[in-house]
Amino acid sequence: MDSQDLHPAVETAAEDIASMEIRGAAAIAATAAAALRAQAEASDAETPEAFRAELLAAARRLRETRPTAVSLPNAIRYVASRTEGDSVPALRESVVVSTTAFEARLERAQSELGRVGANRLQNGDTIMTHCHSTDALACVEAAVEGGKELSAFVKETRPRQQGHITARALAELGVSVTLIVDSAARHYLDEADHVLVGADSIAADGSVINKIGTSGLAVNARERGVPVVVAAQTIKLHPETLTGHTVEIETRDEREVVDDEARAGIGDVAVANPAFDVTPPRYVDAIVTESGQFPPESVVTLMRELFGEEHRDPWLDAGVP
Amino acid sequence: MDSQDLHPAVETAAEDIASMEIRGAAAIAATAAAALRAQAEASDAETPEAFRAELLAAARRLRETRPTAVSLPNAIRYVASRTEGDSVPALRESVVVSTTAFEARLERAQSELGRVGANRLQNGDTIMTHCHSTDALACVEAAVEGGKELSAFVKETRPRQQGHITARALAELGVSVTLIVDSAARHYLDEADHVLVGADSIAADGSVINKIGTSGLAVNARERGVPVVVAAQTIKLHPETLTGHTVEIETRDEREVVDDEARAGIGDVAVANPAFDVTPPRYVDAIVTESGQFPPESVVTLMRELFGEEHRDPWLDAGVP
Amino acid sequence: MDSQDLHPAVETAAEDIASMEIRGAAAIAATAAAALRAQAEASDAETPEAFRAELLAAARRLRETRPTAVSLPNAIRYVASRTEGDSVPALRESVVVSTTAFEARLERAQSELGRVGANRLQNGDTIMTHCHSTDALACVEAAVEGGKELSAFVKETRPRQQGHITARALAELGVSVTLIVDSAARHYLDEADHVLVGADSIAADGSVINKIGTSGLAVNARERGVPVVVAAQTIKLHPETLTGHTVEIETRDEREVVDDEARAGIGDVAVANPAFDVTPPRYVDAIVTESGQFPPESVVTLMRELFGEEHRDPWLDAGVP
Amino acid sequence: MDSQDLHPAVETAAEDIASMEIRGAAAIAATAAAALRAQAEASDAETPEAFRAELLAAARRLRETRPTAVSLPNAIRYVASRTEGDSVPALRESVVVSTTAFEARLERAQSELGRVGANRLQNGDTIMTHCHSTDALACVEAAVEGGKELSAFVKETRPRQQGHITARALAELGVSVTLIVDSAARHYLDEADHVLVGADSIAADGSVINKIGTSGLAVNARERGVPVVVAAQTIKLHPETLTGHTVEIETRDEREVVDDEARAGIGDVAVANPAFDVTPPRYVDAIVTESGQFPPESVVTLMRELFGEEHRDPWLDAGVP
Amino acid sequence: MDSQDLHPAVETAAEDIASMEIRGAAAIAATAAAALRAQAEASDAETPEAFRAELLAAARRLRETRPTAVSLPNAIRYVASRTEGDSVPALRESVVVSTTAFEARLERAQSELGRVGANRLQNGDTIMTHCHSTDALACVEAAVEGGKELSAFVKETRPRQQGHITARALAELGVSVTLIVDSAARHYLDEADHVLVGADSIAADGSVINKIGTSGLAVNARERGVPVVVAAQTIKLHPETLTGHTVEIETRDEREVVDDEARAGIGDVAVANPAFDVTPPRYVDAIVTESGQFPPESVVTLMRELFGEEHRDPWLDAGVP
Amino acid sequence: MDSQDLHPAVETAAEDIASMEIRGAAAIAATAAAALRAQAEASDAETPEAFRAELLAAARRLRETRPTAVSLPNAIRYVASRTEGDSVPALRESVVVSTTAFEARLERAQSELGRVGANRLQNGDTIMTHCHSTDALACVEAAVEGGKELSAFVKETRPRQQGHITARALAELGVSVTLIVDSAARHYLDEADHVLVGADSIAADGSVINKIGTSGLAVNARERGVPVVVAAQTIKLHPETLTGHTVEIETRDEREVVDDEARAGIGDVAVANPAFDVTPPRYVDAIVTESGQFPPESVVTLMRELFGEEHRDPWLDAGVP
Repeated sequence: MDSQDLHPAVETAAEDIASMEIRGAAAIAATAAAALRAQAEASDAETPEAFRAELLAAARRLRETRPTAVSLPNAIRYVASRTEGDSVPALRESVVVSTTAFEARLERAQSELGRVGANRLQNGDTIMTHCHSTDALACVEAAVEGGKELSAFVKETRPRQQGHITARALAELGVSVTLIVDSAARHYLDEADHVLVGADSIAADGSVINKIGTSGLAVNARERGVPVVVAAQTIKLHPETLTGHTVEIETRDEREVVDDEARAGIGDVAVANPAFDVTPPRYVDAIVTESGQFPPESVVTLMRELFGEEHRDPWLDAGVP
Repeated sequence: MDSQDLHPAVETAAEDIASMEIRGAAAIAATAAAALRAQAEASDAETPEAFRAELLAAARRLRETRPTAVSLPNAIRYVASRTEGDSVPALRESVVVSTTAFEARLERAQSELGRVGANRLQNGDTIMTHCHSTDALACVEAAVEGGKELSAFVKETRPRQQGHITARALAELGVSVTLIVDSAARHYLDEADHVLVGADSIAADGSVINKIGTSGLAVNARERGVPVVVAAQTIKLHPETLTGHTVEIETRDEREVVDDEARAGIGDVAVANPAFDVTPPRYVDAIVTESGQFPPESVVTLMRELFGEEHRDPWLDAGVP
Repeated sequence: MDSQDLHPAVETAAEDIASMEIRGAAAIAATAAAALRAQAEASDAETPEAFRAELLAAARRLRETRPTAVSLPNAIRYVASRTEGDSVPALRESVVVSTTAFEARLERAQSELGRVGANRLQNGDTIMTHCHSTDALACVEAAVEGGKELSAFVKETRPRQQGHITARALAELGVSVTLIVDSAARHYLDEADHVLVGADSIAADGSVINKIGTSGLAVNARERGVPVVVAAQTIKLHPETLTGHTVEIETRDEREVVDDEARAGIGDVAVANPAFDVTPPRYVDAIVTESGQFPPESVVTLMRELFGEEHRDPWLDAGVP
Repeated sequence: MDSQDLHPAVETAAEDIASMEIRGAAAIAATAAAALRAQAEASDAETPEAFRAELLAAARRLRETRPTAVSLPNAIRYVASRTEGDSVPALRESVVVSTTAFEARLERAQSELGRVGANRLQNGDTIMTHCHSTDALACVEAAVEGGKELSAFVKETRPRQQGHITARALAELGVSVTLIVDSAARHYLDEADHVLVGADSIAADGSVINKIGTSGLAVNARERGVPVVVAAQTIKLHPETLTGHTVEIETRDEREVVDDEARAGIGDVAVANPAFDVTPPRYVDAIVTESGQFPPESVVTLMRELFGEEHRDPWLDAGVP
Repeated sequence: MDSQDLHPAVETAAEDIASMEIRGAAAIAATAAAALRAQAEASDAETPEAFRAELLAAARRLRETRPTAVSLPNAIRYVASRTEGDSVPALRESVVVSTTAFEARLERAQSELGRVGANRLQNGDTIMTHCHSTDALACVEAAVEGGKELSAFVKETRPRQQGHITARALAELGVSVTLIVDSAARHYLDEADHVLVGADSIAADGSVINKIGTSGLAVNARERGVPVVVAAQTIKLHPETLTGHTVEIETRDEREVVDDEARAGIGDVAVANPAFDVTPPRYVDAIVTESGQFPPESVVTLMRELFGEEHRDPWLDAGVP
Repeated sequence: MDSQDLHPAVETAAEDIASMEIRGAAAIAATAAAALRAQAEASDAETPEAFRAELLAAARRLRETRPTAVSLPNAIRYVASRTEGDSVPALRESVVVSTTAFEARLERAQSELGRVGANRLQNGDTIMTHCHSTDALACVEAAVEGGKELSAFVKETRPRQQGHITARALAELGVSVTLIVDSAARHYLDEADHVLVGADSIAADGSVINKIGTSGLAVNARERGVPVVVAAQTIKLHPETLTGHTVEIETRDEREVVDDEARAGIGDVAVANPAFDVTPPRYVDAIVTESGQFPPESVVTLMRELFGEEHRDPWLDAGVP
């Protein structure tokens, strides 16, 4: 099948995702699911094989747009692993059902996750945060709505200082905020009851990929006896890691670290600016999702449950010659 | 005895130290030693008791200028613990000898320390640094002079980015430098053979007080299997900690962390800016001084050897009513 | 629906549980299951919705009697997650089947668990125990019945000295018992091959809630290289922790710690008497249940399998407005 | 039913396994599955009960041949847990389907596992190996085929020096190999990016049973910050450990350790030669199987999924009086 | 020389120590020093050899009274290592000087130690204590006198509940006290800033011998990130451990653990009641003495300085044939 | 001064050491001391400067023979740091006294060390050994002579199997010996009460340089809770490490690891055969010397006491232009 046979909704979705007009893990996933549904509903395939081929082509078109966006393959695997039936109508129906279920799940995920995470926080607790995560904020928000008073040490999170955004958001929620440089984390860990961070993606071996600095914070939190909680919707679970793939660490512009003028003053040095790092599961106490909380060593089970038990991608791998 | 009986050199020294015209641990220590010698040489005390009282008064005058400058009491204790004799001439002579020895020691300390530290570095090694320390640089310089090629990950060291100074200094020595944000340290520790830092002061229990962020780096270095070396002249050994005193952690202006404009955007939050933190000895592999290298648990022995075995300050405590 | 519509068996069960006439995790769970079956069998609901509402009301009545008894919500969730059907008869049948299965499971749980736990013990091994747990004893009993000779260090378990009961029970089984104070545990850990304890409840993050002192023992067992085994029927798995709830630690009468006379002699001090503490999963080697043994990080999977994959309580949460 | 009623294929299989004519975990498992299928296909049982009894007898005959071969009970449990139906034809069909599926799984397991493991290896990485494992080699082979250049420290693995086989195999794949004595492992761990080993069996508590020396290597790898990867097909998952059984450690001929002449020179000493040891899950980062990678704490879930959720052996335990 | 030649003061001292009329480490040490001085002052020895033989005999007589009282050999070694001179008068003088110095040291030791320990405590800190130690109390007392407000978790310290004495003493000092059972320690460690205990003796390898339960507390304190401080006068440093001797752990009456009636109810079990345990230096942050604070790994240096650098006992070993 | 002015005894000693006719740390040290004394006694230097220059020349001649033999610089430093006097006769006398003292010390060192080490061993204890060390054996011998019954796990110590020598020596002492391959160490550590090894040299930072495999054993011993004791005469303390020098790890012939025939069968691989490795002090519980036992972190103090407090070599460094 040629890609020109794809439903226009798929093409539009692919273009919007590629151009980053649609951004954010949840928005990308929802767009992809809707596109798959549109393709299925409009399909005039005459055989189940043809129908599956169409869907596979649509999935590929969507996925190639941003190969490293973890929620894209998740949306596709969620649907693919639930596409079943002996006839085209049955297949079509299963796609409609699964895409709709996926969208419903997405819609309520953050608030449900927030309620789960909030349950771990006690009135009067102090958290320490790194970077900016709406999932982590959802936990705090639910706790505050539940009447709990919280304090927070907010790491500024060089080089982009997303901690400023977190600080403002927490302050607006009524949390008592103390902003600190990243290096001051261990100094204040004794006063913290929880480290609470988000995740960019989570691997099948339980590793958490998050903003650079998370792993160093987690190691220190363990050493100080402070539990580490990662708030992450299940679309952050990285399906390719089921097959051992490692998550590529993006390297960003060095000017985030040092501006041209300062650099000129320093002279001939290299600057390295990795965006993320990898925290081993032994330094994480719980991963909080909209499906409840999990020790990091158990998320692989959740991944297989949500996105297909087969370690191979149901559609995409099928097409590999 | 009144302070007006102090030798003018003592008064001048005290004023210069207080006004921070004279700065830096070594310069302060040298000035204090010279002032004590001037006082001793000019003394017209008629009894040993009177002589000792004069010296005590001079010592107090000097010390009160900057109560937290660790090298001041060290200079005084070094001299006081070596002031002996049954007559004023004998006492005077002992002060002249000890102040001169102290000065000579100071003068060659950094280069000797550098040679000791350099011996721990192998050709081709990679170090990771935090903040800016001339003692640590002296180790690298001696290694480079010895023909060793080195690489370095240089942490920028927020909030004041002293890492920029270190980066430039290392690059000028021919070291291959990679500048990183503080949060990226653990990500690159696997590529480092040594963490090499300086110290603001070192306590009798083996703790190292250094720029905020050192302790978190040291904990991660241990977790990654990378040895931590602290380069510190012996005037950094904190004599008051012999008696259990803890080193006060200076808090600096919060505008170092966030400028007024950014802060206005964040809203009502506190900002905490501690200048130093405390690294327990179990995370430090060696302290390199001009007297050789020591495990941190043994520096107490060196402290007692250099500055008096009595846990009380020979002169100053004597005067406490 | 009003509570007066509840089946009398539900009301009686609720009263017996509330008054603690019925005690113990297993007895409470069995009573609740039987009450739900009675309600289902007697139901004259005309619609599935009405039937479900009745069951929900019965479940609520039962649960409110002892909000912290972990086996109550487990019995209810087990049944609720298996209540299915499009008609009242089908629903009723499913309740009868699931309650009966639950009871059968309960009846054989301890002996099956015992056989599992016994398999970890070798002839000639020495165990160390804390508090009194019939689940832990079942493991020893099965091992002894299998012809293994065992020795035991039995911690007395202040403040209520349940260790005395354990000591007697083990001695009656023919185990060679040495009774020790709680503080002597580390001294004898080198001679122990296993720490074997029960649990009051187990959380979804793998934490074990058990008699105060368990966590300190487990930390020391890890440090000494002794594996820690927790024997716990699956009704100890705490379903609310799936959603992040923490288990409330009961505080008991301070007179258990110090009698009035002794206290009068001490003067004006507070006395704290928490009944339980929380052992993180990283200090537990295996949780032994009637469904086999599990690393603590995997019990969340077992919980979801047994009590419903939805992180929300199938009936109770549904009723939340 | 008497064993004389067993299908000749079962008897032949049993004899070939017992005589070790058929060796190796995979070959044994495939033979057992084929024998069960032959028994089912040829069955003239008239009732489901009779059919099940036949299968049970066949399973027992097979299993008794080599009680410690982990893949035998796995083959049997895989089939038994999928044997279902209300009639003999239905039961027969289910056995044919499940045995065929099991064989297909076996056939592709090692290469699929290899692709999973290869994904964890980066171009330029250095691995450290212990003993000889075709599963581990499959990972390297897949990585090399994927264009990655690898280096390896190969431990010789006393007493039988299987490391020599590994060294040759790796060298033939184009890996840059350095052979070392076992004691040199920690000295070179700083230069290794992964420890990669196979497994003889894996227990439900996440422990890895592998060639003696694996556990000591894993402890050192953790201390040095090097991740440990275990490559093991799912037939290595030990089903009896689900019920707490420990894996018996085989003791081998002491002449593997010291030949008679050397021993005569040493005099009257004992020689102990255990073939395997047990590595706790906390020292293993990932177990790589043909079903994807898993943290060791999660393999219990995979075991239950593959070989039956019941902790009792579906057929064999049923026959226990 | 026969023991009948001993000075009556030696004999009296020996009897009083043996009969435990004189008790407590400091009192025993002071008595022994005075007896040695009496012997020296009254000596009519005509040769240095005879004088030394007399002193040796006196030392032996004193030491044999309570072989495990650590302060006895310390008093003797302190004096012996300072006994020097070529003539009897010179030797006598040196004994008088050293015994007098030793007594003076003893007299001020606890209050000086208290001032050192107090310096580690900050206003508002919470300590956790085990057993009863006047040295530890001296630290608290000095801190309170310095205007610091403190709180304390006081472990009751089974079996003899010396924690009650500590609780009362702390309460009388104005400390806010919470009494807990020993098993509750880890539960409250997160709220503690210091563990503060005394010592029965301290070994040359840095180990701390103290009331049973200290080591388990220290291991948990490290795990929770709470520093452990041991308050111990230098007479607690155990000189025999310089030569590798281990400190014998006294076993006390089992009725301290369980009274006869309770025991009768338990049946045939053993009861073990060790009085002390051994805490390795890696779990102790500082040892606070009247000579200042030391990392535990450095007390061997202090021991050699105080009690003789020779690892053999200057007098007692000399007499070994 | 030319080397032809050296005393013939110096030249002979140098040749014998260079040719390895004289081997072993103690024999080398004794030879060097005697040669220095011969030089001093025969000196016809007319000024102290000339005398010192002669001694320096002799020291250099001796030292250059085997630059890595740790006991050579120790002998020289011991003498040099005690060479004092204002006249040639006084200097000569001081050399005679110090060399004689050094020899006497050497002569009794091993048996004294043995008595110290034996005190750490209890009747019935089991030790684990690595390689062959006469210092470690001296500890066992003294314990056996003291009536203690001991057992031992003896690691064979590839590649040269010095464990065979140890096994025979221990068996001849009546110790119950079990010989194992190096990889079996962790498997049996639970049955060991002590790890007891020797040392090739010990560094000022507390590191122990010993036969390859020692560090891996020590890491596992810590993980299993087994204390590690290093038996080493003080001539093993490496003086150059005072100034940060690291100890070079000798690489030996690869044919020790794999013979030519086996290697030919393996193909094109490298073989690495380092003779020693470095154990960090945090994995060593005590270093047993003839001067008593020390935590590894304190040996630097002993080194400075024995071989000169100056971190520079008193004679050799003085001569550096």
